[in-house]
Amino acid sequence: MAPTAITLAADKLSVANTGFMLICSALVLIMTPGLAFFYGGMVRVKSTLNMLMMSFISMGIVTILWVLYGFSMAFGTDHGSLIGWESDFFGWTGIDKGDIWSGYTIPVLAFAVFQMMFAIITPALISGAIADRVKFSAWALFVALWATVVYFPVAHWVWGTGGWAFELGVIDFAGGTAVHINAGAAALGVILVIGKRVGFKRDPMRPHSLPLVMLGAGLLWFGWFGFNAGSWLGNDDGVGSLMFVNTQIATAAAMLAWLVYEKIRHGAFTTLGAASGAVAGLVAITPSGGAVTPIGAICVGAIAGVACAAAVGLKYRFNYDDSLDVVGVHMVGGIIGSLLIGFFASGTGQSDVKGLFYGGGMDQFWKQCAGVFAVLAYSLIASAILAFLLDKTIGMRVSEDEEVSGIDQAEHAETAYDFSGAGGGAARTSVTAPAGDAGKKVDA
Amino acid sequence: MAPTAITLAADKLSVANTGFMLICSALVLIMTPGLAFFYGGMVRVKSTLNMLMMSFISMGIVTILWVLYGFSMAFGTDHGSLIGWESDFFGWTGIDKGDIWSGYTIPVLAFAVFQMMFAIITPALISGAIADRVKFSAWALFVALWATVVYFPVAHWVWGTGGWAFELGVIDFAGGTAVHINAGAAALGVILVIGKRVGFKRDPMRPHSLPLVMLGAGLLWFGWFGFNAGSWLGNDDGVGSLMFVNTQIATAAAMLAWLVYEKIRHGAFTTLGAASGAVAGLVAITPSGGAVTPIGAICVGAIAGVACAAAVGLKYRFNYDDSLDVVGVHMVGGIIGSLLIGFFASGTGQSDVKGLFYGGGMDQFWKQCAGVFAVLAYSLIASAILAFLLDKTIGMRVSEDEEVSGIDQAEHAETAYDFSGAGGGAARTSVTAPAGDAGKKVDA
Amino acid sequence: MAPTAITLAADKLSVANTGFMLICSALVLIMTPGLAFFYGGMVRVKSTLNMLMMSFISMGIVTILWVLYGFSMAFGTDHGSLIGWESDFFGWTGIDKGDIWSGYTIPVLAFAVFQMMFAIITPALISGAIADRVKFSAWALFVALWATVVYFPVAHWVWGTGGWAFELGVIDFAGGTAVHINAGAAALGVILVIGKRVGFKRDPMRPHSLPLVMLGAGLLWFGWFGFNAGSWLGNDDGVGSLMFVNTQIATAAAMLAWLVYEKIRHGAFTTLGAASGAVAGLVAITPSGGAVTPIGAICVGAIAGVACAAAVGLKYRFNYDDSLDVVGVHMVGGIIGSLLIGFFASGTGQSDVKGLFYGGGMDQFWKQCAGVFAVLAYSLIASAILAFLLDKTIGMRVSEDEEVSGIDQAEHAETAYDFSGAGGGAARTSVTAPAGDAGKKVDA
Repeated sequence: MAPTAITLAADKLSVANTGFMLICSALVLIMTPGLAFFYGGMVRVKSTLNMLMMSFISMGIVTILWVLYGFSMAFGTDHGSLIGWESDFFGWTGIDKGDIWSGYTIPVLAFAVFQMMFAIITPALISGAIADRVKFSAWALFVALWATVVYFPVAHWVWGTGGWAFELGVIDFAGGTAVHINAGAAALGVILVIGKRVGFKRDPMRPHSLPLVMLGAGLLWFGWFGFNAGSWLGNDDGVGSLMFVNTQIATAAAMLAWLVYEKIRHGAFTTLGAASGAVAGLVAITPSGGAVTPIGAICVGAIAGVACAAAVGLKYRFNYDDSLDVVGVHMVGGIIGSLLIGFFASGTGQSDVKGLFYGGGMDQFWKQCAGVFAVLAYSLIASAILAFLLDKTIGMRVSEDEEVSGIDQAEHAETAYDFSGAGGGAARTSVTAPAGDAGKKVDA
Repeated sequence: MAPTAITLAADKLSVANTGFMLICSALVLIMTPGLAFFYGGMVRVKSTLNMLMMSFISMGIVTILWVLYGFSMAFGTDHGSLIGWESDFFGWTGIDKGDIWSGYTIPVLAFAVFQMMFAIITPALISGAIADRVKFSAWALFVALWATVVYFPVAHWVWGTGGWAFELGVIDFAGGTAVHINAGAAALGVILVIGKRVGFKRDPMRPHSLPLVMLGAGLLWFGWFGFNAGSWLGNDDGVGSLMFVNTQIATAAAMLAWLVYEKIRHGAFTTLGAASGAVAGLVAITPSGGAVTPIGAICVGAIAGVACAAAVGLKYRFNYDDSLDVVGVHMVGGIIGSLLIGFFASGTGQSDVKGLFYGGGMDQFWKQCAGVFAVLAYSLIASAILAFLLDKTIGMRVSEDEEVSGIDQAEHAETAYDFSGAGGGAARTSVTAPAGDAGKKVDA
Repeated sequence: MAPTAITLAADKLSVANTGFMLICSALVLIMTPGLAFFYGGMVRVKSTLNMLMMSFISMGIVTILWVLYGFSMAFGTDHGSLIGWESDFFGWTGIDKGDIWSGYTIPVLAFAVFQMMFAIITPALISGAIADRVKFSAWALFVALWATVVYFPVAHWVWGTGGWAFELGVIDFAGGTAVHINAGAAALGVILVIGKRVGFKRDPMRPHSLPLVMLGAGLLWFGWFGFNAGSWLGNDDGVGSLMFVNTQIATAAAMLAWLVYEKIRHGAFTTLGAASGAVAGLVAITPSGGAVTPIGAICVGAIAGVACAAAVGLKYRFNYDDSLDVVGVHMVGGIIGSLLIGFFASGTGQSDVKGLFYGGGMDQFWKQCAGVFAVLAYSLIASAILAFLLDKTIGMRVSEDEEVSGIDQAEHAETAYDFSGAGGGAARTSVTAPAGDAGKKVDA
């Protein structure tokens, strides 16, 4: 992402870039439902709805917080290289529809809503690590606190004018550190505090619907073009196009690499492997896609595909319940993508910075390491503390009984499916527990 | 929506706005399948396909009618403030690819196809009220008649140059009256005529697939950005961006409000509540999103979320079978969004009209009341008459036997799912009735 | 599609067209997952994942081949009117982010990635013909070979400067020959070699999930706007808008026509008929939508709807197992759309070429015949040879046991669904075979 400034200048609006950014914002928005389906298909049927709801609730909570103070904290005037604040941005009361984002050609509102979609999906990413076992109200509170204490400041570090990582020259085109390492490290911090689900290792987490997983993967892939190419904030040059191209290429390479890896290690090309590999590639190219060539994107994707495929097994070795591999895919993929910039940056993309393989030495690599390490450490520690505090106060976990019998029924008074044809005469066999009685249908 | 004129002038085409409007048209198109899934997931498994087909058939019928005469009736030269007509628009034979929509910067064809998508989804919205019980051929005929007698004229009133509501100054940015009140009132008119499904109140309408509902809600949310932001017909200023932003904000607020309401009233945060709340917010911001501030959008969304959550219970009290809450969400949400403009219009959005809370008095509120009441009354009465005529001639309802055993099998000779693995050796348990034998698979 | 040239000229970038083409590329990308769901829902539950994976793997393989040499073969400097090559395009190493596609206003990278999406979906289309019975590794190899030997050359013939069909004046706006006839004829070639599935005719291929089919149809319809309208490569005039409009109109007409046909022939309006009819219309308008009027689009769509509805029964008469009607819909629909240009071209769209009904004689019709016949014959023969060679070497088909018990388990070590709630206490009845043990979940 290019430099940003907070002064509301009288720059000229580009009709083309404004329309493009609005569409890209819609594309990023659909990623969160996509993520919900990706995760929701991977869990057993008894936890499906809870998994969907952990993503959807972020669309509610973070939107409101972003308007109230999140945008100000992330993109307001810098204070001490650590945090932003701009009173005009509080509740967006000081933003006129005609104000242009300084240094760019789009309305402040268009920029703010594009960035809002990033703030929404980042906490939702964390939810994949805590399948089956967290109270919904505790999760909702965690989302609000985590966005405030972790995401808004980290976004400022990385993308805000004056933010320390931004000023240091850490390259993160669309969120390798601010989104993926951030979410992955948070997931690790939380699960170290709240512990494993009942039956971890003993009962495999068989996906209850792989078509739902593939739907999620498809929508993520689709929306990610807005996420990545949109992050250049306009198409006045070819950088957005390069980012788009590299997004596609790295994703393809990572999917193939993951599939080959699992064929060799486990003997089959699985659907779950294809979906997971694609996401690993999308994650790894997110920070790096503006800096590398198409051939570089193949390398970044292939490396990420193999590394993440290997990394998702670590949870069994080290005994942490990263249920749907948020750490293994988003943290590891984000680290790989961020660090490989130090090697593969070609100097012909978003900037003239060159990595080691293009004669640029190790300078950029060390900068990337600083960004990676700082975000990882801060997010892991802060997230663990938040989870700890919530656990000691309102409690994070549902009861063991509720977890075993199914969190959907316990927390949402619903079950995902009812194929029984109840109420008519067509029923043959019921395959689910009865749907709950709460909700609007019995509002009489 | 801004003023429109029918003269085909030699205005200059904006490449940017043309591309933007085409993409927005695609976004509005995907809303109708989204609606099909939203509704289809909410019904029992035996009615799923019929629910899908009631939306999909509108994509067929209304498209053709819109080309033949619908566009002419809605956006042709005004006649008596009630209806339009323009012979060049009949079959679009007089529209050249280079003609520009007067007063704007996009081809007439791009404007006409964008508006077509609105005409498609509006009758589809009605179908949620009549789950389980209407003959498909009767529905298809109803769609054709309703579009002709109700939608095309009402669209002219509200958005056509010379239409009475448009000239009066009723504000309806993207369809609070013309789409949502219109569809909701029509639903009420139809169900008062055709009556309740078998087992209303006794057998709850348990959603057979909440993931399908959430998919529908996600696609609706996504496509609605095109619906709302596209309605400004270009991004030469920041109004489309404001509308986009407010769409997101009101939807988030309404989802949260609905969830809090049902948690207090019924004890659980349900998936169905999240989806319903989001749609309620989308509906309410549709007329108002160009007129209010982001803080205003939070208020509009929150009010709509609570009001619609309360309104969906009325069907049990007053004993009308609004099966999937078209009245409770679209009519009520549309009324709320339209009327709140009278209070929350800030004078800094699409126009300088101010509502009561911004020092503008009650003037705009009374105008909004006129628009709301006229559309509601006309649509309710005309739709009831249409349903009555169809019922007395070809008959609207399937037989009670067919309704109880399942309309999918009776009307479409299919069942939604077959998890049995029939024809192979893998079958364990069949959970559905056998799929029908009609259709292309047995075309030999 | 308009003339293309391979010289990298210093033309001026259009910010608007660049943004539009990137969004269109994303729209075309989502068509391949859409196709996967469309096909995946139509097969029995035991083959669902294999069907999804045959599409998804094309997103991996073809992307990489396109970067390495496919783009060069299709759009490089012409050699003998049959094939292109341009060393700068090899691995895209000679393409700078600022290079503009000659004669247009978008970066070469944006053009190349848009065309990449076409190359991805075309082999995926073939997979619908070979449900249940092909080894996944053989399919992956087939995709790589077929893209290289068939798609890249044929795309050059039709769209590359110097390509013989292009120079002859064959009109194929967005892929009636290069994509649909090509894929349909290839499907026919392959199935004539590999033979029928076990139980063809005896066991109907009942769709296991019609909602999944409709999701696929919806995503295809949505993405197809990018496919078709994007193929003009910009909106500097109204041709892209005309193409967009006609895409919608023909699809609607074809859906209605198919439904009426099957109602008359088989007695019911089926969901599968609606989805199939829509796709038939989309196929037929793909070559022709820039050449016909909106009324012409109604005719093209209606003719294609009836013809394809009739054609899908031929497989039973002539005893070839075109499992999901790739031949019947894509080959037949592509032929109809391509040939009807000879009758319906109005001279007011993409060019002044007129068909027979507009006083243009039979000239264009014979050109269209040449394009249709050449692509059909080449693709059918080459594809049959490729399938034959693969079958004689590594073998194309899974064993009969594996086919009967289910290819998902045999080839991917997974099953699509598990509604059993295994591992908890909520399980009632298991409706699927246990999910496989391969894959990332047991990577410890």
